[in-house]
Amino acid sequence: MLETTIAAIGPLDEPAMTAARQLQARLTKPAGSLGTLEELSVRLAGLARSCPPPLPDPAAVAIFAGDHGVHAQRVTPWPQEVTAQMVGNFLAGGAVVNAFARQAGATVTVIDVGVANPLDTAPDPSGPAGSAGSDRDDVPRLVSATVRRGTRDMTVTAALTRDEARAAVEVGIRIAGELIDAGAAILVTGDMGIANTTPAAALIAAFTGADAAEATGRGTGVDDPTYQHKIEVVGAALRRHTPDPTDPLGVLAAVGGLEHAALTGLILGAAARRVPVLLDGVIAVSAALAAVAFAPDAVGAMVAGHRSAEPGATVALRRLGLTPLIDLGLRLGEGTGALLALPVVTGAVRVLHEVATFDSAGVAEK
Amino acid sequence: MLETTIAAIGPLDEPAMTAARQLQARLTKPAGSLGTLEELSVRLAGLARSCPPPLPDPAAVAIFAGDHGVHAQRVTPWPQEVTAQMVGNFLAGGAVVNAFARQAGATVTVIDVGVANPLDTAPDPSGPAGSAGSDRDDVPRLVSATVRRGTRDMTVTAALTRDEARAAVEVGIRIAGELIDAGAAILVTGDMGIANTTPAAALIAAFTGADAAEATGRGTGVDDPTYQHKIEVVGAALRRHTPDPTDPLGVLAAVGGLEHAALTGLILGAAARRVPVLLDGVIAVSAALAAVAFAPDAVGAMVAGHRSAEPGATVALRRLGLTPLIDLGLRLGEGTGALLALPVVTGAVRVLHEVATFDSAGVAEK
Repeated sequence: MLETTIAAIGPLDEPAMTAARQLQARLTKPAGSLGTLEELSVRLAGLARSCPPPLPDPAAVAIFAGDHGVHAQRVTPWPQEVTAQMVGNFLAGGAVVNAFARQAGATVTVIDVGVANPLDTAPDPSGPAGSAGSDRDDVPRLVSATVRRGTRDMTVTAALTRDEARAAVEVGIRIAGELIDAGAAILVTGDMGIANTTPAAALIAAFTGADAAEATGRGTGVDDPTYQHKIEVVGAALRRHTPDPTDPLGVLAAVGGLEHAALTGLILGAAARRVPVLLDGVIAVSAALAAVAFAPDAVGAMVAGHRSAEPGATVALRRLGLTPLIDLGLRLGEGTGALLALPVVTGAVRVLHEVATFDSAGVAEK
Repeated sequence: MLETTIAAIGPLDEPAMTAARQLQARLTKPAGSLGTLEELSVRLAGLARSCPPPLPDPAAVAIFAGDHGVHAQRVTPWPQEVTAQMVGNFLAGGAVVNAFARQAGATVTVIDVGVANPLDTAPDPSGPAGSAGSDRDDVPRLVSATVRRGTRDMTVTAALTRDEARAAVEVGIRIAGELIDAGAAILVTGDMGIANTTPAAALIAAFTGADAAEATGRGTGVDDPTYQHKIEVVGAALRRHTPDPTDPLGVLAAVGGLEHAALTGLILGAAARRVPVLLDGVIAVSAALAAVAFAPDAVGAMVAGHRSAEPGATVALRRLGLTPLIDLGLRLGEGTGALLALPVVTGAVRVLHEVATFDSAGVAEK
């Protein structure tokens, strides 16, 4: 499944991009006056192979949840049980991601790929939100797809076997397909996993060559001693494994997380279907680096939702060549930053659908 | 009307802001993880004098349109007729602001305060969009409130008399009141006026002390010789009038525009009613400088929607102490940048309404 997905990913379509640029020039506004939105609309036309591209509506948020063996290294003050408790909060609709998803009219699907503690909610048998079996699009759904109940401690051994990493990537690919089959026109990345900014930093360092101090941030807001310790933990894991950035499955296995690997799969799955994927924060962009290592053209499907306060996110965005749409100092994860950016993406495409041309509106040009 | 409006503007309410900060700390997210959105929610609680403050929904865009005598100085390659033609485009729903307003569920009201050329659409007698007399909230409305058919050339004489400037400010105050009475929970500034970045630059220079070169930008994208000439025109107007920044009506009269003055009134009217006003680009922030010169506490009602590509906008935002929510290189005006930011404002407030607390969700704290 991974290999056929990678094989299906191709470059942006030049004729559709040229058509979008020509259409932008005829619309009733000064050329270039919509800034970043104009080039975004052009890229999305190239991805969809049509001008205008479809409106990115409805959106589907996929929140992959997992735990981390490296939590034992005290890289965060939060107890590991919070991962399972927050999954419960997502399913009850009480988290920030739920509030933002309701506002955006997006479905929420929570995929347990590796939560360590038992969830007190039974998975919904009818599949991801918005699927044929679902009668309420606004109720978050749980998909149980446990690969293992949390990773191993990457400072001691590889976090995952290659087979486990592949299985998690393939969960992401499968979820992308199911959400798109159920009608999603854009996928939004979400994540939950106490300690998951630690493997994200290690992934970013491994794929970009940045050192541990550059790639590591304060996550939920750790104090100075914990932050210094976290940098040392990331550095120790990198020295132990010396992961090869041209072998993304090996990198994900050595220093990754189950939700990171699954997000890599979600991105690849979206790119293979030529559906845009809106990236949230540092977890998403670390997964995106793995996705471009598998398939460089996958970057064409990516829209960077926001610039996380985590410094590693900026390192990764620079490597990906992506400009984030929102930059408000957010560091919550869950998909929240991406959901805030969704109306900007929709607006960029809507312009190509709805705005009058100089000719049609009888407006003089300069 | 101006004086009573100014007298009604007061400071943010400290108890409501304290309540909002305390509520933010109990919600199921790491403290501070929503970045700029948290302080925005606190300010809006202070403005509304309640925690949570009301959701800023529905929104009403008020697009003030006017022409400019300084157009004769060839500061732009666009013909003056385009102001009237674009008003027609707004009323037909064909402009970018219409597309973004439809997406945001915002009403659009176009107020002619000073268009030079005849409009080919009759004003709607039933008042602003969303008012009692309107049966279709999604159809843009025209309000005819002409003060004069364009300003005078500020390089030759004052653009407006003091009475004309006051009349335009009072149009804005009246429109704010009507839109709020019709149910608007947030006002969004819009503008249309060929050459209107020239008076905006002069206003920003006059109120901040910036020199003409700092405050002046390329507007719709003028070439190098026109840009240099535009800076000289702004500088000449400032030297002719030496406007006194402590006399905002005098500044608006000397180097302002009718839409700028009306936007000043809209902001003051919103602040007096303690309703937030979402500022668009350089025209809006130049008007906001006049508003704080009339009433310093008016800043409490302002939310900076975006950072316009016009350099004067950044000069003005710095003086106002406002951080824009969106920064995407937009320079279209009309209200487009503010409308893109509206979901961010709504999201910031929605968090206080809908997100579970650690206690209620059974989530452990660190």
